Amino acid sequence: DEKLKVFTLNSNRDLAHEISEHIGIEMGKCSVTRFSDGEIQINIEESIRGCDIFVIQSTSSPANEHIMELLIMIDALKRASAKTINVVIPYYGYARQDRKARSREPITAKLVANLLETAGASRVITLDLHATQIQGFFDIPVDQLVGVPILADYFQTKNIDDIVIVSPDHGGVVRARKMADRLKAPIAIVDKRRPKPNVAEVMNIVGNIEGKTAIIIDDIIDTAGTITLAANAMIEQGAKEVYACCTHPVLSGPAIERIQNSKIKELVVTNSIPLPEEKHIDKIKQLSVGPLMAKSIIHVHEERSVSLLFD
Amino acid sequence: DEKLKVFTLNSNRDLAHEISEHIGIEMGKCSVTRFSDGEIQINIEESIRGCDIFVIQSTSSPANEHIMELLIMIDALKRASAKTINVVIPYYGYARQDRKARSREPITAKLVANLLETAGASRVITLDLHATQIQGFFDIPVDQLVGVPILADYFQTKNIDDIVIVSPDHGGVVRARKMADRLKAPIAIVDKRRPKPNVAEVMNIVGNIEGKTAIIIDDIIDTAGTITLAANAMIEQGAKEVYACCTHPVLSGPAIERIQNSKIKELVVTNSIPLPEEKHIDKIKQLSVGPLMAKSIIHVHEERSVSLLFD
Ligand SMILES: Nc1ncnc2c1ncn2[C@@H]1O[C@H](COP(=O)(O)O)[C@@H](O)[C@H]1O
Ligand SMILES: Nc1ncnc2c1ncn2[C@@H]1O[C@H](COP(=O)(O)O)[C@@H](O)[C@H]1O
Repeated sequence: DEKLKVFTLNSNRDLAHEISEHIGIEMGKCSVTRFSDGEIQINIEESIRGCDIFVIQSTSSPANEHIMELLIMIDALKRASAKTINVVIPYYGYARQDRKARSREPITAKLVANLLETAGASRVITLDLHATQIQGFFDIPVDQLVGVPILADYFQTKNIDDIVIVSPDHGGVVRARKMADRLKAPIAIVDKRRPKPNVAEVMNIVGNIEGKTAIIIDDIIDTAGTITLAANAMIEQGAKEVYACCTHPVLSGPAIERIQNSKIKELVVTNSIPLPEEKHIDKIKQLSVGPLMAKSIIHVHEERSVSLLFD
Repeated sequence: DEKLKVFTLNSNRDLAHEISEHIGIEMGKCSVTRFSDGEIQINIEESIRGCDIFVIQSTSSPANEHIMELLIMIDALKRASAKTINVVIPYYGYARQDRKARSREPITAKLVANLLETAGASRVITLDLHATQIQGFFDIPVDQLVGVPILADYFQTKNIDDIVIVSPDHGGVVRARKMADRLKAPIAIVDKRRPKPNVAEVMNIVGNIEGKTAIIIDDIIDTAGTITLAANAMIEQGAKEVYACCTHPVLSGPAIERIQNSKIKELVVTNSIPLPEEKHIDKIKQLSVGPLMAKSIIHVHEERSVSLLFD
């Protein structure tokens, strides 16, 4: 279909190429570079008039660069008479500032939503928003894809006996429940408590993990503090082995070292955020969301519901 | 006045402190840092409810970081019930993409204007926009201050005889004319022409520079290619000595080396963009726009016209 075009910016080039191959079209021609002073220079090198455009870009680190690339690309596409501008954001960054936790805080998740709309986005396709409420920050349609099936399928093929799915906090129980349903496993919850101020947190596990293979699931793993402490606590409390998995491997600061040194047997993640060379350690397995993204793009272009993909 | 507050982000901290001292108020308390993954974290540490807020931030390099800091700060101020949010942008970056020179180009100067308004800015105070038309990209009031008087006053104190003011291109003649009027000097224009394709440009000078002290004036000096070539050509064509000046010292890539190796005697700039240590060379003189910015802030806060400052 000549009216469907996929473009990539700089955050997820490999994933974008995988997506365009899956769809069976050439990648849209476009260069995204920098002027001498660091300002972004974008050249779209083919006509896009009247087309449904899909731009692949996570707002992952360096988030500010990636956001500005996306906004400038949307501006250029709009001025070049694209029919629709669909932004495919595998990892939607700035999502953890999604409410005023304290006075005078920004709500960056909402700000970025507003910026995307102002630039001219017509639709957002994303994966596992940190809070589902962020969908409501947009006035344009948002399709939210789900990473759990991809992660669950991987563990299914391992044929592990006696699994327990573990949520690392109370906020993640719904996600853990979904994973547990697919793997027909029970759940457990890490109940972090600080007995007194200035006393180290205690990792109490609610649920039975004794002798079982625990799989901790989260949406984002950033500095990997909680998840590695939880894994170690679970081994101490009798778990046979501990896996961890998440959709978005932010893995900043001490994350890789912590994972390397932890009792986690394997960390399973998706490529919503690509892992640079220095984060390629044996313990980390990266699964592709390319086929899922490709399917959702075709559904949107053919005006079919994306929610059909969730079966 | 308790209802007037000045905050600074990371682009121009020294200038901002100079401004708040001039006004005679304490700098607003606010920390602007990064989370582990590089996302911007802003904490406004005092109440700003009902206040006129002035935020000092150039969108200079790293432009994308500085723009996002500004947008997130505006969002936080808006949610904290500021009465007005006045953004003071000494250097308005992304301004050279201010029209579609070729097909499918973005217009970043307009995009950034839209982003600032979307975030919640109520007014912009800026200095020497690359094109005056950019004022019209905003639907909020824009006060545009002028750098020429500051630059001209500096040369006045040097008591140089027989000056000629030189515009480095045809687009800069109006600016050169203003400078010439203040210094009671004639003007000349660098008329760059390429005799044939793939033949080096010829720097033809329109106007008499023989035996005179030439002062080249531009708004932005970025890689300093044109200005250093022009200076050298002027010396060859009989100028006694050549000064250069500009409002915005972008000075990226080879700029410092080129200036160092050129026939330019002195380059005079403002602090709309601060110069990092490695750009502090003897040949560069930096003048402060702090007093001008401070005055314009007081005028805005007292609801007096900023154009009164242009006499
Ligand atoms: N990029 C970030 N890295 C680490 N913490 C963040 C980041 N963005 C927001 N936060 C903090 O994370 C907390 C929200 O986390 P959560 O409850 O997991 O959504 C808030 O207190 C935020 O201040
Ligand atoms: N940050 C930048 N650095 C260098 N050139 C730029 C930059 N932004 C835009 N341009 C180019 O500068 C030209 C406009 O320059 P001017 O005619 O001086 O306004 C356009 O061709 C732009 O593509």
